[in-house]
Amino acid sequence: MAYTTVAGQNLRRIESLSDGVFSIAMTLLVLNLRVPAAALVRTEADVGPALLGLLPSIGGYVLGFLSLGIFWVCQSTQFTYLEHSDRRLAWWHIAFLLVVGLLPFSTAFLTTHFPLRGAVLVYWANLLLVGAALLGSYRYAQRHSLLRAVDAAVSQALVRRIVLMQVLYAAAAGVCFVSVYAGAILLLLVQLNYALGLVADRWLGD
Amino acid sequence: MAYTTVAGQNLRRIESLSDGVFSIAMTLLVLNLRVPAAALVRTEADVGPALLGLLPSIGGYVLGFLSLGIFWVCQSTQFTYLEHSDRRLAWWHIAFLLVVGLLPFSTAFLTTHFPLRGAVLVYWANLLLVGAALLGSYRYAQRHSLLRAVDAAVSQALVRRIVLMQVLYAAAAGVCFVSVYAGAILLLLVQLNYALGLVADRWLGD
Amino acid sequence: MAYTTVAGQNLRRIESLSDGVFSIAMTLLVLNLRVPAAALVRTEADVGPALLGLLPSIGGYVLGFLSLGIFWVCQSTQFTYLEHSDRRLAWWHIAFLLVVGLLPFSTAFLTTHFPLRGAVLVYWANLLLVGAALLGSYRYAQRHSLLRAVDAAVSQALVRRIVLMQVLYAAAAGVCFVSVYAGAILLLLVQLNYALGLVADRWLGD
Amino acid sequence: MAYTTVAGQNLRRIESLSDGVFSIAMTLLVLNLRVPAAALVRTEADVGPALLGLLPSIGGYVLGFLSLGIFWVCQSTQFTYLEHSDRRLAWWHIAFLLVVGLLPFSTAFLTTHFPLRGAVLVYWANLLLVGAALLGSYRYAQRHSLLRAVDAAVSQALVRRIVLMQVLYAAAAGVCFVSVYAGAILLLLVQLNYALGLVADRWLGD
Repeated sequence: MAYTTVAGQNLRRIESLSDGVFSIAMTLLVLNLRVPAAALVRTEADVGPALLGLLPSIGGYVLGFLSLGIFWVCQSTQFTYLEHSDRRLAWWHIAFLLVVGLLPFSTAFLTTHFPLRGAVLVYWANLLLVGAALLGSYRYAQRHSLLRAVDAAVSQALVRRIVLMQVLYAAAAGVCFVSVYAGAILLLLVQLNYALGLVADRWLGD
Repeated sequence: MAYTTVAGQNLRRIESLSDGVFSIAMTLLVLNLRVPAAALVRTEADVGPALLGLLPSIGGYVLGFLSLGIFWVCQSTQFTYLEHSDRRLAWWHIAFLLVVGLLPFSTAFLTTHFPLRGAVLVYWANLLLVGAALLGSYRYAQRHSLLRAVDAAVSQALVRRIVLMQVLYAAAAGVCFVSVYAGAILLLLVQLNYALGLVADRWLGD
Repeated sequence: MAYTTVAGQNLRRIESLSDGVFSIAMTLLVLNLRVPAAALVRTEADVGPALLGLLPSIGGYVLGFLSLGIFWVCQSTQFTYLEHSDRRLAWWHIAFLLVVGLLPFSTAFLTTHFPLRGAVLVYWANLLLVGAALLGSYRYAQRHSLLRAVDAAVSQALVRRIVLMQVLYAAAAGVCFVSVYAGAILLLLVQLNYALGLVADRWLGD
Repeated sequence: MAYTTVAGQNLRRIESLSDGVFSIAMTLLVLNLRVPAAALVRTEADVGPALLGLLPSIGGYVLGFLSLGIFWVCQSTQFTYLEHSDRRLAWWHIAFLLVVGLLPFSTAFLTTHFPLRGAVLVYWANLLLVGAALLGSYRYAQRHSLLRAVDAAVSQALVRRIVLMQVLYAAAAGVCFVSVYAGAILLLLVQLNYALGLVADRWLGD
């Protein structure tokens, strides 16, 4: 009986569990968007201000979705290079999902307590843990020959991408000690860059 | 190593993430249906009025489910014509899911504030964003040769369908400035038409 | 290009959407189980009564899970006989999921207002709608040759099973007009029978 | 028509339903982590204490995630050995998911009422039910020849692993009658051991 098939099936189930966690975390973000009570919106003139009042929550929704999207793309790229799986790799990815599952919380923490530096640092700490789990799982797969035959350049590019992302996040977190607004805007710009693939593509060389 | 296989796997994961987001958004709609408290339903005679009081929420549930169903069918039809995927196409679909994920919110906004024109316009704005993301993702796939070999007629029909849908939605939104009720009913009829496939099939030519 | 492949992919996505809706509806049931506040459980002696107080909610959880399980098995059996899919079949299944998605609501309605006959009838009405959607989707697939080549006996057995189930549910609902408790217990026994496959297997002949 | 294909599809759908339930249960755990209100965190100095106050909830989150991860790995390992499926096996797994779906509840029960022995016992009872369902489903598959050809040693190892796990859980529950803290810590250590695969791997012999 082909062990490869079995292992392949395992890979598929880790993917399936991951897609589940990501899609739920993405969809749960909308629960932070509360429809204003009917009593607060009595005339047409109240609709505009009610929507304006929702802007911070909508910002949090978009930010949370971007972060989850970025890490989903990272993880699914990694999976296109995985050929086998073992129990420990599964656990690396469960650990990854554990910290990904915290993103809706830390995003809500950030939007609730925004002007405070501590709120940005909490959010950043979560991004750091997600990056660490992603890097850890890739390194584990490399060391245990679970990857497809892939040339060293691709492999280096993947690792560099994760590390570079974290360096940029850390820089943004550092800027917070000078100006919280500047740090938060920098963090948002890094996220947007990875979502829209503006500068990163050239660095990644693909 | 076949790049096609890798890209194919990516397509599968975008589908899997999308099915997750759609199924969760659909199922979360039921959370707006609150069971009336035991204290409010004391005798058999109270059950009927309690159910009648739930009718607007049930209407919102059905409307939300129809909208999600319509866009799920649109996106899954598009996927049957996709052959490859790249990082940007993935992001087009993440953007699509981002605005799809707002539908439970804008549906609840509509049913909570219904007699107001602003409520219908908020809901319409969401439908517009979903349509824009759908069209954007298809156009991107066309321009970057990510589609299967498909004759121009099919391709035109797909685009025409999305555009026509949005023209009808916009017309319904326009009618709101004359009569909110007429506009809302027109919007509902357009949705029902696409769900039941009454007129659309002949237009699409399939 | 093989149209079959495309249609097959569609079938897979309807399955994937369905598994999503079922698994979320199942998991949301646990939200009705609220952990008693710390202030209400101060000593070891309070744990037992606190758990006893949760029994009706646990009963609702088990009943809801059984119902969802029964219809999930029904639908997935039907899918093993489907060979093709079209847009209308997709909509039959979206309609099926729409009424399946109401089950957590009607289950909570039943457990909240139990001694009332109206509560049992609301729950039964939901089971009826689910059965109607299931039968409708199968009949549609039959009429439009979307099924695998399957001998008439299997096909009849599938239809008979759905109809028989609904006859038993309707009988239990009827008994409610004599005794609400007897009707509810009968309903539960029918559900248990289908879950445990006690009598049904012989009737179905498999 | 190949019955194998049909049965294989069934297996895939049980996996898909299971991945759905596990991923939702995992992601719902984060809902127990409530962001402290803005009024409670007014200055930078309040962020630290606010996070410290969240530690028990974070502990519950991690514990719940570990438990779900452990049983997800157990079930997906079992599936790599399944070749066929029938309706009863599907129901064994629905029963398994029913008790898995209770884990977010019993984890919250544990963290809310921790110093009480009854809280640890409620949590342990849930672990016991999950183990029983897992063992039941495997034994059923064995007796009805639904497994791939697998040598007896592997099969014994799988069963031994489940039983051993439950013996360790039961021992930890027993220790609770001497010291609740010691029992809870032992339970946590057993979970960590299975997650990190420290000692278990040698016992399992793989």
